[in-house]
Amino acid sequence: METLSILLADFTPMDPKDYVGFTFFVGCMAMMAASAFFFLSMSSFDSKWRTSILVSGLITFIAAVHYYYMRDYWGASVAADGLENGSSPIFFRYVDWILTVPLMCVEFYLILRAAGATKKLMWTLIGASTVMLVTGYWGEGVDRDNAWLWGLASGLAYFYIVYLIWFGEAKALATSAGGEVLKAHNILAKFVLIGWAIYPIGYMAGTAFGDPEGLQTEQWYSFAAGIEMDVIYNIGDAINKIGFGLVVYNLAVTSSSK
Amino acid sequence: METLSILLADFTPMDPKDYVGFTFFVGCMAMMAASAFFFLSMSSFDSKWRTSILVSGLITFIAAVHYYYMRDYWGASVAADGLENGSSPIFFRYVDWILTVPLMCVEFYLILRAAGATKKLMWTLIGASTVMLVTGYWGEGVDRDNAWLWGLASGLAYFYIVYLIWFGEAKALATSAGGEVLKAHNILAKFVLIGWAIYPIGYMAGTAFGDPEGLQTEQWYSFAAGIEMDVIYNIGDAINKIGFGLVVYNLAVTSSSK
Amino acid sequence: METLSILLADFTPMDPKDYVGFTFFVGCMAMMAASAFFFLSMSSFDSKWRTSILVSGLITFIAAVHYYYMRDYWGASVAADGLENGSSPIFFRYVDWILTVPLMCVEFYLILRAAGATKKLMWTLIGASTVMLVTGYWGEGVDRDNAWLWGLASGLAYFYIVYLIWFGEAKALATSAGGEVLKAHNILAKFVLIGWAIYPIGYMAGTAFGDPEGLQTEQWYSFAAGIEMDVIYNIGDAINKIGFGLVVYNLAVTSSSK
Amino acid sequence: METLSILLADFTPMDPKDYVGFTFFVGCMAMMAASAFFFLSMSSFDSKWRTSILVSGLITFIAAVHYYYMRDYWGASVAADGLENGSSPIFFRYVDWILTVPLMCVEFYLILRAAGATKKLMWTLIGASTVMLVTGYWGEGVDRDNAWLWGLASGLAYFYIVYLIWFGEAKALATSAGGEVLKAHNILAKFVLIGWAIYPIGYMAGTAFGDPEGLQTEQWYSFAAGIEMDVIYNIGDAINKIGFGLVVYNLAVTSSSK
Amino acid sequence: METLSILLADFTPMDPKDYVGFTFFVGCMAMMAASAFFFLSMSSFDSKWRTSILVSGLITFIAAVHYYYMRDYWGASVAADGLENGSSPIFFRYVDWILTVPLMCVEFYLILRAAGATKKLMWTLIGASTVMLVTGYWGEGVDRDNAWLWGLASGLAYFYIVYLIWFGEAKALATSAGGEVLKAHNILAKFVLIGWAIYPIGYMAGTAFGDPEGLQTEQWYSFAAGIEMDVIYNIGDAINKIGFGLVVYNLAVTSSSK
Repeated sequence: METLSILLADFTPMDPKDYVGFTFFVGCMAMMAASAFFFLSMSSFDSKWRTSILVSGLITFIAAVHYYYMRDYWGASVAADGLENGSSPIFFRYVDWILTVPLMCVEFYLILRAAGATKKLMWTLIGASTVMLVTGYWGEGVDRDNAWLWGLASGLAYFYIVYLIWFGEAKALATSAGGEVLKAHNILAKFVLIGWAIYPIGYMAGTAFGDPEGLQTEQWYSFAAGIEMDVIYNIGDAINKIGFGLVVYNLAVTSSSK
Repeated sequence: METLSILLADFTPMDPKDYVGFTFFVGCMAMMAASAFFFLSMSSFDSKWRTSILVSGLITFIAAVHYYYMRDYWGASVAADGLENGSSPIFFRYVDWILTVPLMCVEFYLILRAAGATKKLMWTLIGASTVMLVTGYWGEGVDRDNAWLWGLASGLAYFYIVYLIWFGEAKALATSAGGEVLKAHNILAKFVLIGWAIYPIGYMAGTAFGDPEGLQTEQWYSFAAGIEMDVIYNIGDAINKIGFGLVVYNLAVTSSSK
Repeated sequence: METLSILLADFTPMDPKDYVGFTFFVGCMAMMAASAFFFLSMSSFDSKWRTSILVSGLITFIAAVHYYYMRDYWGASVAADGLENGSSPIFFRYVDWILTVPLMCVEFYLILRAAGATKKLMWTLIGASTVMLVTGYWGEGVDRDNAWLWGLASGLAYFYIVYLIWFGEAKALATSAGGEVLKAHNILAKFVLIGWAIYPIGYMAGTAFGDPEGLQTEQWYSFAAGIEMDVIYNIGDAINKIGFGLVVYNLAVTSSSK
Repeated sequence: METLSILLADFTPMDPKDYVGFTFFVGCMAMMAASAFFFLSMSSFDSKWRTSILVSGLITFIAAVHYYYMRDYWGASVAADGLENGSSPIFFRYVDWILTVPLMCVEFYLILRAAGATKKLMWTLIGASTVMLVTGYWGEGVDRDNAWLWGLASGLAYFYIVYLIWFGEAKALATSAGGEVLKAHNILAKFVLIGWAIYPIGYMAGTAFGDPEGLQTEQWYSFAAGIEMDVIYNIGDAINKIGFGLVVYNLAVTSSSK
Repeated sequence: METLSILLADFTPMDPKDYVGFTFFVGCMAMMAASAFFFLSMSSFDSKWRTSILVSGLITFIAAVHYYYMRDYWGASVAADGLENGSSPIFFRYVDWILTVPLMCVEFYLILRAAGATKKLMWTLIGASTVMLVTGYWGEGVDRDNAWLWGLASGLAYFYIVYLIWFGEAKALATSAGGEVLKAHNILAKFVLIGWAIYPIGYMAGTAFGDPEGLQTEQWYSFAAGIEMDVIYNIGDAINKIGFGLVVYNLAVTSSSK
């Protein structure tokens, strides 16, 4: 059917001061464009690098779809309750992260495969990132009374990933590979250490270390006055996902042209 | 027309405790990402393996579309009647299964084709899986008074598939092929035996062996308190379909690189 | 804009006894999956067979889009007037048929091209199928008083196609080609004779030979009690279109591998 | 959000006598199928012909999107005001034409490029077609008091295109190319002379030579009794755009196979 | 669910004098068609030029999506408040520009890469264009009291880009490359100088040099009587983006055919 022509009697223009909505919109479009870029550039690489580029595109594509939903969710919330009371789509963020973060771990494996990375390493990284995210979701969304405990578990999993990439098996393989692969590995490792740091910060801000002031669950992060975590997440996500993919892309370009 | 700007006066945020909705969302996105992965990686394989990868992608793609509908159906149900009374989209599940399960049977044929699998074997597997699903639908949806009878017919068809794959013609072909093909066949056979076991369990839970307590047909599976079959189905489907496809993908990679 | 969150106060679950709706849904998904299969497998064939596979995919793709609309139309009708009074989307069926049936005729030409089929034969088949469908639509939808006359014209065009394929020029070309082409031609010819027979049966049931009982035009086929023509159409369409395409696909596989 | 389940309390079935709606629907689907055909067949041609096929596909694709909108617009209009008072989507037609007609002119250039057609010829044709359409829109939509004057300007631009193609530079190039190119050029030239003639006829009918009876601007072409210009446009557009593309496709096939 | 059949009781036909709406519609379709053209023609070029064509397609694709939103936004605004009070979607324009303008800067780098352009030059251009747009957004949308100051910062960044392209490092590289590359560079440089000039003009018109008359923020550019900036933007954007892409496309064609 789809014949649809309802219109608001009272048209509400976009508020230029809605930075959250603005960065949701930019984020969605940037992720979409990045996905198109990665997918369409695949055919220019030989098959050895294609899987890496494909996974880069999948990461931004999954994010693009979630930003589409988050943008809508935020917009509906602002339209219903006003800009001051916009509701953070943390539900969608976790769905996004649960799918994209393990895929970012897979990228480390794909890059180091030629240097001898085993599937066991890949599954270790996937497993640690899944633990990190599921415990994080549980602490923020379900069992907020014990947020500190779930946050601790999540943090331990995170630091295990950091350890593997900065000092452990993954680092050793990157060092043995050397050259462009090592350079790329080091940049990606910095993404994990620095770029991903915004997520535990957001976690702590959102749960307020056990939620002592009794914030309602459905008002996560909606600080009328204060730091807008969503703006930080939106910019952070864009850098962490598109930047991550571009490092891999650059490695593929420099390795293929040799 | 499509000009559309209706907004709820009372904005309802997503409930972080809606595990069913959460797993529907994750499932939909994971299936979609898996389809993109399979379809876009097709060009990296020689034509012998392309059909197998294509069918893997079709399975997850069909599931992605159905999860999209199921997610919406569940969301609309929760919004109307509350989280406690969410209605299970079993109607859509069967549409999904009736299309994807026969395609999974086709995968066995495609893998064993080089070892001499006949089209007769393929049609036998397709036929048995169709019987399994149509009788299952009939028992759950239409003739619940005789749910045990339909369930029995469905179960017999299921065990016939298990027999063919574990001991019968399919197993013999896999053994004669040996190597990577046999390994992959054995993993896929475990998917059928272990992974698919959740479906008859769900059937028995849903029909409660003849529906003695008089549950209304339209409230299948909506146990206010108890096991949430939908969460089990959503996680099970993801493993059974994406995992199944990844085993085939892995076989194609190892066979092509030789 | 697209921000949309209206929800029914009274959520109506899908009725598992709505076989028409169920087969519309399965049909839509099956057609969509078949299109994806045909389109994505095109690159595995040499260019001689690609056009045939492309046309197979177009036929199922056009059908998929129409099934999407028909599913919605049926669902809206059932929701408004109850399952007993569902309204048949015969309007959409004819749009579908007017585009796909001539394309099926083109398939005969494409298969027999190597054996010397002329464009004149192609246009004759296209012309006859167009006459068959336009007169059929006129008799069912517009001038129901003379339904028998329009039905007769439609039937004559149909039998002319059957004649060409079973005994006439097309048959002669198929015989001269022999081998796999002849086999495929004979199966496709059976589709036309047996599979297409459901359409004139539906026509006769729908118009009831001149509509003596004064059924209202807008209630075509909605028999509260009796044969559900839509279920027959939905299953028939799936077999006639996907099966037709698979025969062509199979011919392409066997011919390419030689 | 997108969770949507509103249903009409009073379900209105499609009227089989709504020929305009019917041809909008068929037109939309035919254009869409033609686009899929052209785009997906591109890879079968060598790069010399690919641009021509691509432009053929763009023409039908742009038309498909506009027919989608026009179908909806017409349907909404009929649902609101009744079949007798359906409102013609002339606004969308002009958007469509302003993009597709210059592209059809580009096709002449692409075909004659090998024979030495210059970019100057291409831009002359693009320019003349743009003048033809902008003046036409102005006369029909904005300054109806001087419809005859704008119609005259539009007509002059049209005849200049006809002159170039039938007797001028384009004809000379086609003659020097000879063979299949000349044949195709002559058929395309007939499309321009005969097929495009429906547009000035529609213009004259719509503006009624200065609009003496004071038809309201928003009721363009909605003749309760009389010729349904929309049916003529819909059939004409399908022939002019798909047929045009098929002539180019046929030229590519015959030229490539040599 | 998506079953949707709401219809306006009072159907409002499109106003042919709504030039803004008309150019939004044409712009959206033209951008979409251009994207399809660039993306689908990629495979005809060798990999050296593919990235340039891909970026051209991304620019028009991002614009197409934004025009889709802007068209809807404008339409909803006109339907709610009348054509005289249509609200300019400047919010969406900035989202578009923030993504596409840096990509246009990347095109300069891609063209000059063979002549030795460094990544530093690319990042300098990206940085300057980002400064130009963020300060512009701030001045127009957030801190209108100091619009002159933000406008000055934006203008300085703009002239720095012009300097680099017309006299600085980029110009030097283009001169050293010579031939077709220099020609294309010079045309693109003219786009930046002349074509982009409409944006600062729009900025000055919109902010009215500090907004002395106290226009409300949400009424940017909606001049009941006066210059319609949106029509100028819509035509300007189409030329600046599609034209820009076609210059790159033309360079790729002439360079590949040698």
